[in-house]
Amino acid sequence: MTGNLRVDGARLWASLIETAQFGATPKGGLCRPALSAEDAAVRRWFVAAAEAAGCTVGVDAIGNIFARRAGSEAGLAPIAIGSHLDTQPTGGRFDGILGVLAGLELVRTLNDAGHVTRHPIEIIDWTNEEGARFAPAMVAAGVFGGVFDLDYALARTDKAGITLGAALAASGFAGPEPVGHRLAAHYELHIEQGPVLEAAGLEIGVVVGVQGIRWFDVTVSGLACHAGTMPMAMRRDTLNGAARLALAVDAVGRSEPGLSLSTIGIFEAWPGSRNTVPETVRMSVDLRHPEAAGLDRMKAMFRAEAAAIAAALGVDIAIAPVWSSPPVDFAPHCIAAVREAVAMLGYSHQDIVSGAGHDSVYTARVAPTAMIFVPCEGGISHNEAENITPAQAEAGANVLLHTVLAHDAA
Amino acid sequence: MTGNLRVDGARLWASLIETAQFGATPKGGLCRPALSAEDAAVRRWFVAAAEAAGCTVGVDAIGNIFARRAGSEAGLAPIAIGSHLDTQPTGGRFDGILGVLAGLELVRTLNDAGHVTRHPIEIIDWTNEEGARFAPAMVAAGVFGGVFDLDYALARTDKAGITLGAALAASGFAGPEPVGHRLAAHYELHIEQGPVLEAAGLEIGVVVGVQGIRWFDVTVSGLACHAGTMPMAMRRDTLNGAARLALAVDAVGRSEPGLSLSTIGIFEAWPGSRNTVPETVRMSVDLRHPEAAGLDRMKAMFRAEAAAIAAALGVDIAIAPVWSSPPVDFAPHCIAAVREAVAMLGYSHQDIVSGAGHDSVYTARVAPTAMIFVPCEGGISHNEAENITPAQAEAGANVLLHTVLAHDAA
Repeated sequence: MTGNLRVDGARLWASLIETAQFGATPKGGLCRPALSAEDAAVRRWFVAAAEAAGCTVGVDAIGNIFARRAGSEAGLAPIAIGSHLDTQPTGGRFDGILGVLAGLELVRTLNDAGHVTRHPIEIIDWTNEEGARFAPAMVAAGVFGGVFDLDYALARTDKAGITLGAALAASGFAGPEPVGHRLAAHYELHIEQGPVLEAAGLEIGVVVGVQGIRWFDVTVSGLACHAGTMPMAMRRDTLNGAARLALAVDAVGRSEPGLSLSTIGIFEAWPGSRNTVPETVRMSVDLRHPEAAGLDRMKAMFRAEAAAIAAALGVDIAIAPVWSSPPVDFAPHCIAAVREAVAMLGYSHQDIVSGAGHDSVYTARVAPTAMIFVPCEGGISHNEAENITPAQAEAGANVLLHTVLAHDAA
Repeated sequence: MTGNLRVDGARLWASLIETAQFGATPKGGLCRPALSAEDAAVRRWFVAAAEAAGCTVGVDAIGNIFARRAGSEAGLAPIAIGSHLDTQPTGGRFDGILGVLAGLELVRTLNDAGHVTRHPIEIIDWTNEEGARFAPAMVAAGVFGGVFDLDYALARTDKAGITLGAALAASGFAGPEPVGHRLAAHYELHIEQGPVLEAAGLEIGVVVGVQGIRWFDVTVSGLACHAGTMPMAMRRDTLNGAARLALAVDAVGRSEPGLSLSTIGIFEAWPGSRNTVPETVRMSVDLRHPEAAGLDRMKAMFRAEAAAIAAALGVDIAIAPVWSSPPVDFAPHCIAAVREAVAMLGYSHQDIVSGAGHDSVYTARVAPTAMIFVPCEGGISHNEAENITPAQAEAGANVLLHTVLAHDAA
């Protein structure tokens, strides 16, 4: 009966283009930091559009917006469709936005078909997902998921010293609802933000979880000495040690192909004088793996390599853990609903683990959660050049629609 | 007749300690930037001491001080003994100073013995050797050697915007003599500023030349991408390329043991975000070798390795030459005079190539030049902890004395 339902791809695309006026940049991207005037404008647009589509809109104390379409069975918790409308300062038009507007398109499609789901449906705009204005990222979904206290979140400040709470009040989106309520499920459609699906020529990624992440600060210390007077054989060369460690970290990232990732984003030699062997090198290490045991293997390999290099070169290598985010496994029955939708629709697809964080990481703490990825051009995101095609947006929204219907029917 | 002459080691040491009052730091080092009040004070001390030793003192237009002891044969150019009295901001008590005060001790020793050399003797304090206040280093010896114009040198500014010319006038050492005159030879006694002699347990280094130096700025560029979403196999990883290049540069430095040196002092990843593969890495490369052909071999090896790494990883490696200083070979007959003195005195010794720059690099352009090294504790220099023993100072001064006598007798 609902198997033939499809979203209106043109209407979805028109919504994406229409909302891209709020914070549009000359290069075709968006600058819409959380709770800025531009973010408030797109929020008002969303509230009006959701109400026009028959939704009842509620806002909680951290500014999360819930656009609710009633279900037919009393006592069932809502199936949520959530993502975010805020962007990076030089962000794109699809990161997060696709997930919210696809929810709106889903409701419009159900309205057109006159189909009432058993569960209520909630389209959610999570506040400050990007973390570009207020760190940490995903802070409002984190409060919803019990990871952060509300007071902590409201006290976050931007570079100008404005608190998230003050910005929320100024935006008109400090709502009366308490943060956190029961959800039957949370589904999030998102662009991949990486190159895997495009490279494989696939239309849909069935996101089975989110990688675990471990961050370390590493300080390599050796003997600062004169570039012209210290023989190579007598050096305890900090930079050489740090370079060897960088190659070892790269090897750790390649140790489990398709699973392990490693990145060194910060690498600074001090004091940074051209004719002095550096006294210290400070570097960051980012290790990722979809499994906790895999992360442990990577960490052990990294520490063993560091110890071997330190011993071989006579340098000191100090490793300080900075942050750890455990892997997230999405709910099997939610993943099954996504698979069912993809199979019914016939889209080419693969399972994928998200390398980036999403609001779904935190909703997964309190609600069965899964995600759907569509490819993006060149894997580029957090960039004004971020791009997808109307067909990609439509395919993702159709998968979202039938995932929700599958979940609702189960 | 003069073979039994020896300097008075205690007197030399007393001069070193006495002048260490000018710019003394709490940690036992010196802060005596060129033409500072402290430098002017030690210059006045030196002028008074030289005049008390029977010298006639002249000052040239760039502030170089020449303390002259007359010779017995008319028409012979002076044998110069030169170094510098200025220091690094956190410098030691011997770098440069030993060479000037050993010249004073030599004159005092000749006076005590009633020995008049055939050549006049000039003890020279070269202005602003360190370059710590006015860049470039060795600028006044450079004007003497025809490397820099006088106007250029006088126009150099310190961090406060004061020109070297203004500082010279304020110090009272803007002299009337033109810069540059004929020297029969220039000998410089200096601490090694490296660990080679100490490690070998030797008393004297016969300095046969100064290494050539080539500086490069290297920029490695790859694909900036998200640490969590870009598979290792699809990366064009800037940091990995730069780390491999760093190891290749290290190998270049080890390619001709005892001759080649390489150093990376600057290494910075940009933009320096923990979860982003860097877009660029900027690094410095310093290559040194005592022979021009050796420097060429090192440069070729460096460029070939860079090209291979760029091709293997798909990154760009841009190499820009920044500065080149050709190797200096000291005058064979001056080196022979040093060897003769060392042999006669029976000190343990080895030939050595200076890795650091010295005033002698520039005097070598216009006068037969050689240098004598004594070891310093741990090879440490440009540091308040810089140290030598009274016996080391005495040994160096005795070699200097008998080098000058050998040259004078030849």
